[in-house]
Amino acid sequence: MSSFKPDAVELRHHLSEVAKARATSPLKGLQKYLNKPGLLSLAGGLPAPDYFPFADVSANILVPNSFPSTTSGESNFSWIWKLFGAKEKTTAITIPKYARRPEDLNLATALQYGLSSGLPQLQKLVENFSKRVYDPAYNDCVTMLHAGNTDAWNKAVLTLCNPGEGVLVSKWTYPSAMASMTPYNIRPVPVDIDGQGMRSDALRTVLTEWDEDARGMPRPHVIYAVPIGENPTGTTTGLQRKKEIYQLCVEFDIILVEDDPYFVLQEGPYLPKEQRKPGSPQTDEEFIASLEPSYLKIDYQGRVIRLDTFSKTMAPGCRLGWYTCNAMFAERLERAAETSTQAPCGFSQSLVASTLIQWGEAGYMRWLKGLRVQYTLRRDFLVDCFANEFQLITTSGTDMWAGCQVFNGSVKPKSTTHFFNEKVPLSTPIFSFVPPTSGMFVWLKVHFTEHPAYSTLGVKELETKLFIEFAEAGLLIGPGAMFNPTNEWSNVTSGHYRVSFSNGENEELKKAVDIFGKVLRRFMEV
Amino acid sequence: MSSFKPDAVELRHHLSEVAKARATSPLKGLQKYLNKPGLLSLAGGLPAPDYFPFADVSANILVPNSFPSTTSGESNFSWIWKLFGAKEKTTAITIPKYARRPEDLNLATALQYGLSSGLPQLQKLVENFSKRVYDPAYNDCVTMLHAGNTDAWNKAVLTLCNPGEGVLVSKWTYPSAMASMTPYNIRPVPVDIDGQGMRSDALRTVLTEWDEDARGMPRPHVIYAVPIGENPTGTTTGLQRKKEIYQLCVEFDIILVEDDPYFVLQEGPYLPKEQRKPGSPQTDEEFIASLEPSYLKIDYQGRVIRLDTFSKTMAPGCRLGWYTCNAMFAERLERAAETSTQAPCGFSQSLVASTLIQWGEAGYMRWLKGLRVQYTLRRDFLVDCFANEFQLITTSGTDMWAGCQVFNGSVKPKSTTHFFNEKVPLSTPIFSFVPPTSGMFVWLKVHFTEHPAYSTLGVKELETKLFIEFAEAGLLIGPGAMFNPTNEWSNVTSGHYRVSFSNGENEELKKAVDIFGKVLRRFMEV
Repeated sequence: MSSFKPDAVELRHHLSEVAKARATSPLKGLQKYLNKPGLLSLAGGLPAPDYFPFADVSANILVPNSFPSTTSGESNFSWIWKLFGAKEKTTAITIPKYARRPEDLNLATALQYGLSSGLPQLQKLVENFSKRVYDPAYNDCVTMLHAGNTDAWNKAVLTLCNPGEGVLVSKWTYPSAMASMTPYNIRPVPVDIDGQGMRSDALRTVLTEWDEDARGMPRPHVIYAVPIGENPTGTTTGLQRKKEIYQLCVEFDIILVEDDPYFVLQEGPYLPKEQRKPGSPQTDEEFIASLEPSYLKIDYQGRVIRLDTFSKTMAPGCRLGWYTCNAMFAERLERAAETSTQAPCGFSQSLVASTLIQWGEAGYMRWLKGLRVQYTLRRDFLVDCFANEFQLITTSGTDMWAGCQVFNGSVKPKSTTHFFNEKVPLSTPIFSFVPPTSGMFVWLKVHFTEHPAYSTLGVKELETKLFIEFAEAGLLIGPGAMFNPTNEWSNVTSGHYRVSFSNGENEELKKAVDIFGKVLRRFMEV
Repeated sequence: MSSFKPDAVELRHHLSEVAKARATSPLKGLQKYLNKPGLLSLAGGLPAPDYFPFADVSANILVPNSFPSTTSGESNFSWIWKLFGAKEKTTAITIPKYARRPEDLNLATALQYGLSSGLPQLQKLVENFSKRVYDPAYNDCVTMLHAGNTDAWNKAVLTLCNPGEGVLVSKWTYPSAMASMTPYNIRPVPVDIDGQGMRSDALRTVLTEWDEDARGMPRPHVIYAVPIGENPTGTTTGLQRKKEIYQLCVEFDIILVEDDPYFVLQEGPYLPKEQRKPGSPQTDEEFIASLEPSYLKIDYQGRVIRLDTFSKTMAPGCRLGWYTCNAMFAERLERAAETSTQAPCGFSQSLVASTLIQWGEAGYMRWLKGLRVQYTLRRDFLVDCFANEFQLITTSGTDMWAGCQVFNGSVKPKSTTHFFNEKVPLSTPIFSFVPPTSGMFVWLKVHFTEHPAYSTLGVKELETKLFIEFAEAGLLIGPGAMFNPTNEWSNVTSGHYRVSFSNGENEELKKAVDIFGKVLRRFMEV
């Protein structure tokens, strides 16, 4: 780790007017009194914990090795639990209202008004995780809890941007993140992507050729990045690409917000069924080393605000995650929380902290390894379904998929009738995708150029029509238009659909691909 | 209840530019498909509930009659529990991951991404509560869950106000609410108060005499009100005053945000110990009728956004509450939540819902009656302590306390030395207060005009010096300066301190008043 200590003052000009106008903490002057032992405080508007109706809160939590840590032929047996009502292996945790030792988790503290930065016990746990797993490039970065990445991004963008400014985003990106900022007149500036997400050469071009007058806004000083299993495209940005993008951040004085919910869901390359080999268990160090690193690892100037969430590693309803960033940004983000969300929910903080304590650091690593395998099995199963339903031919990708092996789906020669259908030759693919190496999504391109009505209806219209046909047949998948951050369609020649494999059981995924195939073939008239 | 249906469109011009710019829900077009039974959805980015580590969550909750429902001589015995380790009477609740009946609370739903408006089961419970207890003046008001009143106010003010606008507030008001809006250049406009909070005549004067140029902003169209046990002054706005203020809202086209965390803590008038009579139990209807009503009861035009919270009725760490307002405002507030906080924490929603279901509506009413009594006992005890420590003489209030019985504290003739101290005659009070009828706070005025250094140091300096002396002696109370929404001090001749009785045990309250007395007498040189 570098001993470089970023001078936060150099980055101060990145703060928005709102962030600058936030007062220092009202508690600041009182801090020395608040820490005085034995001080009697009638200053706060605190209800008495005796009147909290919760005498204790407990949970039965799954043991860390509930799911296999390798893809060695084992499949997802969770449906068996539900089918036969069998009990998973669990362990009990309890948080009492009053703890014997003040350092132990207790509801009297967790359910009281508390620090917006979160319960100290949980703060310590996430700090250790961030330092161990992300290995930040400077020593004194700060971790601070937040109420989930959506809110954290909202606070981050309003801390960094003024109305009328722009944020650099991937050409296809997460719509909620855009909906968070556009009402404040902070506009997305799309950058072309390839199989690794945002292209560094395209980013350089946008920045170098920036014309403030033509664009109607100053050159953006913020990047919104989802570097692992990007939503919706499923792309993952490797370390070399990250270095190139970070170098541009240094060169053009840019802050990068790394929204990384899928970090542990790095499933690796998809292999056809017959080529899969049983994996061997990894040590924690091997596991960490096998994951594409965070931007924090190369952030020697404190330009990265990383957003972590428990939504994918525990549950979205926790509404809990944490920032890792430099102290100056952390302080402004804490002020923003104090006057809005305050601390994250106390049930969530204490139950998540208690789970992590019960599991221990090694247990949590084991849990994450299991999750990665489970989502890998689901990814593999969905792609296998496509391989069963269609003839999949791989080609080298171009444009958005340059450098990737693209899977092109064409009608499978099921019956002789297909051989004589001359509308579309057998080898013409009607859709394509790159199996993602991370995350929850397969991003499909449907080749509407092959559709008889392409020239009359256009891509957007066809995309909507097909979306409705899928839905009418019983399958809901995300239409590409949702993920277009601008209303620019001129260079879009395919329809796009985001298919999530994260929450479908095998039978559901199979049924979904059946419907997809039937509807798509009919729609494309092949 | 009136059958008047407010035309929400008439109020549309109150929406801020940000609120207007919020898109309609991205789910809107898909709604008809989402509700289709048997539809297979691979559209969302949902993790699989099988991988939520929480197999179930349980709590032992206090029974609804844990605390006496009347002040009939019973005192707060909660310290005995802790002293002897005795168990409170509790009942168990459990929320399983998967419920047998889909309408039952379950973690698979509660901990999944969900509607920003909250879990339907909890929504129904708060809707019933709002309708029954607040008895709104129009039929089709909407309830919607939120993540606590601080965040709800933040969302409300940004939904209603543009930068450069003002919000009408009481002369002394809640600092966090101000800190929520001032960084956006939405400025507080103080209105004079009396013993019932904001004065309607003063409000009319401010509105009638509004000079946009002199003030540098348009006439405000939003009031921030804490009508019950206002923070910090402890004042409560009666129905007649509410009608007068509401009439001004109609006349001057104003939206009123009612932040009402202390609604059930309506303790009633303070009576000296010897005058207290044992109360008799109230039916639920009598209990509801005994509470000052909400602004909703007179809101026939949909001008009120009411904010309710579970922070005082359950625990602040729930970070859970709800809006009651017209459908148009609710829709914009829901959009604001979707792109930031999303749904309130799922643990909180399901545990609070399960508690309310376990208790039943009558049980919850019984719980609230008990809370009211507990805080009444604490209020009484604190004032009793002042009566023991000082000679308290009551007078009719003027100015801020017009219409109130004011308690004036002077040095108690403990020893003969006091009789011959000529610096301050015995009858000269050194501080005053009005015992609050609601809430958690006693708002003290210290008569610095009697202080030898008044003319040289001034009020603000003396207030800070005395605050530090209290703290150095071991007592922390809120200095008045924190609650001054502007930096205007010209008409302030007393020092102010907010003393909270909500979270002190009897011994602590007694010790606090001992310190207060000792330090104040020394400081005032009496």
